[in-house]
Amino acid sequence: MGQQPITFIRQVLAICMDPSLLDSSQYPQDVKDRVRKVLGACGGGSVGAYTHSSGIELVRQDVAKYIERRDGYPSNASDISLTGGASEGVKEMMKCLQTGGSGKDRAGVMIPIPQYPLYSATISELGAYQINYYLDEDNGWALDIKELKRSVDEARDHCDPKLLCVINPGNPTGQVLSYENIKAVIQFAKEEGLFLFADEVYQDNVYAQGAKFHSFKKVLRDLGEEYNDFQLASFHSCSKGYTGECGIRGGYVEVLGLDEDVRYQITKLGSARLCSTSIGQIVMDCVVNPPKEGDESYPLFIKEKNVVLGSLKERSRMVAEAFDSIDGIKCNEVMGAMYAFPQINIPQKAIEKAKLRGEEPDFLYCMELLEETGICVVPGSGFGQREGTYHFRMTILPPTDKLKILLQQFKEFHEKFQQKYKD
Amino acid sequence: MGQQPITFIRQVLAICMDPSLLDSSQYPQDVKDRVRKVLGACGGGSVGAYTHSSGIELVRQDVAKYIERRDGYPSNASDISLTGGASEGVKEMMKCLQTGGSGKDRAGVMIPIPQYPLYSATISELGAYQINYYLDEDNGWALDIKELKRSVDEARDHCDPKLLCVINPGNPTGQVLSYENIKAVIQFAKEEGLFLFADEVYQDNVYAQGAKFHSFKKVLRDLGEEYNDFQLASFHSCSKGYTGECGIRGGYVEVLGLDEDVRYQITKLGSARLCSTSIGQIVMDCVVNPPKEGDESYPLFIKEKNVVLGSLKERSRMVAEAFDSIDGIKCNEVMGAMYAFPQINIPQKAIEKAKLRGEEPDFLYCMELLEETGICVVPGSGFGQREGTYHFRMTILPPTDKLKILLQQFKEFHEKFQQKYKD
Repeated sequence: MGQQPITFIRQVLAICMDPSLLDSSQYPQDVKDRVRKVLGACGGGSVGAYTHSSGIELVRQDVAKYIERRDGYPSNASDISLTGGASEGVKEMMKCLQTGGSGKDRAGVMIPIPQYPLYSATISELGAYQINYYLDEDNGWALDIKELKRSVDEARDHCDPKLLCVINPGNPTGQVLSYENIKAVIQFAKEEGLFLFADEVYQDNVYAQGAKFHSFKKVLRDLGEEYNDFQLASFHSCSKGYTGECGIRGGYVEVLGLDEDVRYQITKLGSARLCSTSIGQIVMDCVVNPPKEGDESYPLFIKEKNVVLGSLKERSRMVAEAFDSIDGIKCNEVMGAMYAFPQINIPQKAIEKAKLRGEEPDFLYCMELLEETGICVVPGSGFGQREGTYHFRMTILPPTDKLKILLQQFKEFHEKFQQKYKD
Repeated sequence: MGQQPITFIRQVLAICMDPSLLDSSQYPQDVKDRVRKVLGACGGGSVGAYTHSSGIELVRQDVAKYIERRDGYPSNASDISLTGGASEGVKEMMKCLQTGGSGKDRAGVMIPIPQYPLYSATISELGAYQINYYLDEDNGWALDIKELKRSVDEARDHCDPKLLCVINPGNPTGQVLSYENIKAVIQFAKEEGLFLFADEVYQDNVYAQGAKFHSFKKVLRDLGEEYNDFQLASFHSCSKGYTGECGIRGGYVEVLGLDEDVRYQITKLGSARLCSTSIGQIVMDCVVNPPKEGDESYPLFIKEKNVVLGSLKERSRMVAEAFDSIDGIKCNEVMGAMYAFPQINIPQKAIEKAKLRGEEPDFLYCMELLEETGICVVPGSGFGQREGTYHFRMTILPPTDKLKILLQQFKEFHEKFQQKYKD
C-alpha cells in the first residue's frame, strides 16, 4: 500500500468491528446502512462467525451485480467465490485443474513472460509444467497470438496443455489488452481446448490515452452462444485499484462454463478450506458496491478515488518518461497496473562479475542500486525475460515528490554503473 | 461463533480500521496504546499494507513471550509464523513435509480417529497416505501408545510414516491429555523418527475437574537436551478459547527443530503466499497479550472471559450428562474443547435402510433429527469411528436456555427413532 485508504471502506469496517459505533453521530448514514446490511448477512450478526466457505451470500450477490453492470451480461452469485485476495483464488483454482499424470500427461500451464511470480511458484508447487509465452517488448508488451501458438505447439512434446493464464492489465509489464486482442486470445483458447484464467486485479488501473479495460467475460459473451461452455475464471482483489487494501486480504473469482467434474473438486476443496476472512469479504462488498451519487459518503468517496487514480496516472507517465530518457534504459509506456518494467543495458564486465558469483546480472545491478541509493527494485529475472535481456520492476506507488528525487538518484546511479563496468 | 466477542479485541480492531477514533474519549487508554503499538509495526502505519509473509514482527515477538510465560522455556519469534487460522497453518506445514514418492515411499501421516476432517482432507489433497490410530472410547477417548505403535507398524507396508498429528484438547472427542501421556507420545515419535503436529487450538478450553492443559513444547523441553532436534509444530488460533473470532481468521504456528531442507521449503512456499490478513494477526496479538491487572480494560475483559469460559464449562457438563442419561446413547465426559461426541445405538432396520440408500447409518439418523426437530449435528462418519459404531458431534455453543430445550427435543426424537426402527 502506498496510497491513502478510502474513508468509506474504513468506516464500514470500524463499525463492523464495534457495532456500538452505530449510535455515534460522526458516521454518515450510508456507512451505517451498509454495516447493518452486511452484519445482517453474517451468522449471529457478527464478523466473528464463520461464513459459508464460498463467502457471504449477500456479498456474492453484490459482486454478481457489479459484474452485470460492468459487462452488460448476467452474472450468477453461485459462480462466485470470495477469496483471501486474488492469490488465494488463483492457487485454489489451479489446484482444482491439476491432473496427476507425469511425462506427457502432466498438466501444462501457459503463462506470460514476464509474469507475476505467483504463477510460476504455484505451477512448481503443484508439479505442473510451465509453458512460457513471451510478451512482445518491442511492441509495448503486446500479447501475440502467433507466440501463444508457438509456445503451446512446442510444449505438446512435454505435457498436456490445459490452462492459459493472462494478466490484464499486465504485471509487471503494464500493458492493457485491446478488445480485438482479447477476442483472439479467447478464440485461440477455444481451439486449443484450454481453460482460461484472467487475472484482472488491475481493472480499475488504466491510465493510457485511448486505452480501456475490457473484461474477458464481456468479450466472451459477445462471441455468442457457441462459447457458452468456454471455461473462464476471472480474478479480482481489494489490494489494487483505488482501494489498495493489501493487508486485509479480499478478492473474488467468477468461474464460468465448469464441467461437473471440476465443480465437484472445487466444492470438495472448498469445504476443507473454511472461509476467507469476513473482513476481506466486507471490503469486497465496498469495492464492488461503492457509494453512489446522492449517498452521504459520495462526495468524499469520489474525491478520494479521483485523487488516488489521478495521481497514479501522473506517476505512471512520470516514471516511464524518466526511465526512457536515461541512456541505456528503454521503458515502454505504463498503460495500466502499478509498475514500470524497463530494460537495462548491463555492460559485459558486470555480466561476467555476476556470473562468477553465481548471480543474475540484473540481481547484481539491483543490489548495487540498493546499496548505493537505498532504492529497492526487483530484478527482472524474478519475473522471467528473454535470454540476454535485463530488466527490473519498479512500482509507481511512491508519492510524486519522493518519486522525482528517486528518479534523479536512479539516473545518477545508472550512469555511474555504466562507467564502473565499461570496457 | 456462539459467544459474545471480547470488547477489548473489538475496540482495538475498530480503531485500527479508523485511526481517527484515537481522538475519541470513549475508548480505554490501554486499547489506544495497543492500537498505536500494532499500527506502528505495520507498513505505513496502516492495516492496509502487506505484512511480512511470516507476519508482523512485533506480533510474533508477543506470541513468543506468551509461549515463554506459558511453558517456562525460551521461544523465538523467528520460529513463529502467523497464519490465517490454524487450518491454513496445518495445510501449509503439511505441504512442506510431503515428499513426492509413490508406493512405499509415499509419506504416511498418522491421525486420530475420530479426527477433525481438516486432516483427512489435507492428506487426500496432498496425495499422502492416511494412517489411522484409534482413540479409546471406553477409556474417555484416551490416546494409547500401544495403538500408535500398532498403526505405524501396520502402515509401514504401505508408506513411509513421517508425521504424527495429535489434537489436544481433542476435536471432536474433547479429551485432555495428561502430562505423562504427552511425554510418552513424544518419546514414541522420537523412536519412530516422526515429525509431530500438536493441534492445540483448544488450549484455553479445559473444563474437567483436575484436568490441565500441558503444551507439547513444555513437555518436550522438560525431556532435556537429548530432544533438542525433535521436530514439533504447534498450532493455535483466535477462533476458539474465549475469543471465538472464527470469521477473522487468525492463528500461529511455532516450529521447532527444523532441519535446513524443511526450513528452506517453508521460506520458499511462504514467499509465494503473501501474508495472512493483518487483522487476523492483530487479533492474535490480543489473544496472546490480553489486558493485564491495572489496565483500564482489565475489569471488563476478565469479566467477559470468565463468563464465556464459565458458561462453556457448565454447558460441557450439561450436554454430556444429558446425552449419557438417554437410553441407547453413551457419552464420555467433555473434558475440554467445544464438542460432545456421543455413541448412538442404531437399530438394525435403520442400518439396513441406510445401506439400501447408499448412506451411512449415522447420516440417516442425523438427517431424520434435522428434519423432525431442526437440530443440526454432524454424523460421526465424517470424523471416522470404529467399524460398526455410530456417533455424532454436537457443539456445546448454544446458550444454556436453548440447550435445555434442545436436549429435551433430542431425547424425544431418539426414543421415537428407536421405536420406529425396532425389530
